[in-house]
Amino acid sequence: MADRRVMAVKSGGEAGFAEWRDCFAALDPSLELLYWDEALRRPAEIDYALVWDPEPGALARFPRLRVIFGSGAGVDGILLDPDLPRHLPIVRMAIPEAAQRMGEFCCWAVLSLLKEARRLAIAQSKGEWDYFEPPYRAEMRSVGVLGLGAMGTRSAEMLRALGFPVLGWSRTRKTLPGVESFAGAAELPAFLARTDILVCLLPATPETRHIVRAETLAMLPPGAAYVGIGRGSHHVLEDVLAALDGGRLSGAVLDVFEPEPLPASHPLWRHPRAIVTPHVASLPTRAERAGFVARAIAAFERGEPLPNLFDPARGY
Amino acid sequence: MADRRVMAVKSGGEAGFAEWRDCFAALDPSLELLYWDEALRRPAEIDYALVWDPEPGALARFPRLRVIFGSGAGVDGILLDPDLPRHLPIVRMAIPEAAQRMGEFCCWAVLSLLKEARRLAIAQSKGEWDYFEPPYRAEMRSVGVLGLGAMGTRSAEMLRALGFPVLGWSRTRKTLPGVESFAGAAELPAFLARTDILVCLLPATPETRHIVRAETLAMLPPGAAYVGIGRGSHHVLEDVLAALDGGRLSGAVLDVFEPEPLPASHPLWRHPRAIVTPHVASLPTRAERAGFVARAIAAFERGEPLPNLFDPARGY
Repeated sequence: MADRRVMAVKSGGEAGFAEWRDCFAALDPSLELLYWDEALRRPAEIDYALVWDPEPGALARFPRLRVIFGSGAGVDGILLDPDLPRHLPIVRMAIPEAAQRMGEFCCWAVLSLLKEARRLAIAQSKGEWDYFEPPYRAEMRSVGVLGLGAMGTRSAEMLRALGFPVLGWSRTRKTLPGVESFAGAAELPAFLARTDILVCLLPATPETRHIVRAETLAMLPPGAAYVGIGRGSHHVLEDVLAALDGGRLSGAVLDVFEPEPLPASHPLWRHPRAIVTPHVASLPTRAERAGFVARAIAAFERGEPLPNLFDPARGY
Repeated sequence: MADRRVMAVKSGGEAGFAEWRDCFAALDPSLELLYWDEALRRPAEIDYALVWDPEPGALARFPRLRVIFGSGAGVDGILLDPDLPRHLPIVRMAIPEAAQRMGEFCCWAVLSLLKEARRLAIAQSKGEWDYFEPPYRAEMRSVGVLGLGAMGTRSAEMLRALGFPVLGWSRTRKTLPGVESFAGAAELPAFLARTDILVCLLPATPETRHIVRAETLAMLPPGAAYVGIGRGSHHVLEDVLAALDGGRLSGAVLDVFEPEPLPASHPLWRHPRAIVTPHVASLPTRAERAGFVARAIAAFERGEPLPNLFDPARGY
């Protein structure tokens, strides 16, 4: 059985597993998939793991494990495991399909703020012809993108094509055509002061936790807006709500929360200037993600480098 | 008083007139503006008219009238006048700012269909975390744009940049980079058969009246969607509703109606797959429109050609 290759899957539950199995059957028929419960009963057989939030200690129980694949864009759910086998490569699901989907959602969110879509939706819910004149064209509202990884880069490119002036902020300086670049903590205030619509697409790390809070929101121009579509850890939700109520923020689109789901009783659901969506901004299909994993495994088994490796030094 | 120049204004009522006057005061202080009622009392003084829907016979009462400016993108409200002085040039408000605003709204509408924004808004109105996986990326949904004037062209360009395959249909063949071109009645069925999301940005003419009706909707692929943001005369609303209910259309965004406002009792307001907005897709500000008119008048008075002239032969 030298050629047997087995991947343990913990992502999407049992229903998700059936889909993963179908996807991989079409892509790499010789790769055997084991549902997580079964994998934990047969740990010695596991070569690969495809996981979102494995329970602490589980990955350490697979003696043959060679690669850990995160099933989403962030691997912070994996890093929570204190017994994580840290010598193993962790591959992030930073795939072009996910960046494209995020860019689409980002543009939808930013245009929703420009066109006052929440006001339009409330009027529709009442059957009211609430005519008004949206004041801004895209070129009058700068969009500041926090984080210029695959998702931030694609979003910035699409926003530019729509006519928005785009600024980008990243940990280390990035150069993107037509995007004014800011880097590091020292340049964050200048970036925020010039940003009318703030978009957060940073990785979820201890450094980016609560980067959007009262103190940073206060650095935005009055009447700015916020698009929270990265991870729930990026923002202090109560501060966003207070900024909406206090007028610092004219609007917000929020797709990610801590915890999820956002409780039905949370006032944001009913806020007249907030759009709340259920973490749908960028979910590549299982077929798209399985394609990436199958290609990565093939490359790895040919002795080629793995893509999108988690870097412990930078934290993502 | 040889240099006196007077423009009669009928657009936006009395409140609108005050804004027009402020705009022109900044742009061309020597141009005198008269509110419509006053202009009708002093018809011999009028050189220019800026109008949306003048009452029949009114424009014929201005003996010195030299140019008629439409205050919106379409001039069909002016053409309804049986006594329209047909020897006079009619200038359409086809300005880049309006095309840009339309492109923004068009992208918002198309992305709203891609991301199922109506479903998201209904869930938010109930405080429900309605998680689902939007199946498509932009590249999987072709957008067919009916009408490749300034608005259709800018919209097509922006949609392309978002990743949508774009088809265009026009009366006479147009060539746009990256847009598959169809022309004339003979090619309409082929265009519709290839269109997943249909956008109508035609001028309002007798030929384009009810171009979107049961017969043409049936030529779209099952599960297609419709974005009606041009003019209310383009679609038969009952046919759009029937196509939504029958499944031919998976969704619709409608901004224009006949008559407007859409009555509060109309079932579209409450339809679970229709987004209804109150004719806000592309309204350039009065400042943007006044700038165009002031530049056109200056050119005209220097003996240069007027821009955006209505062409009776093509009907727009």
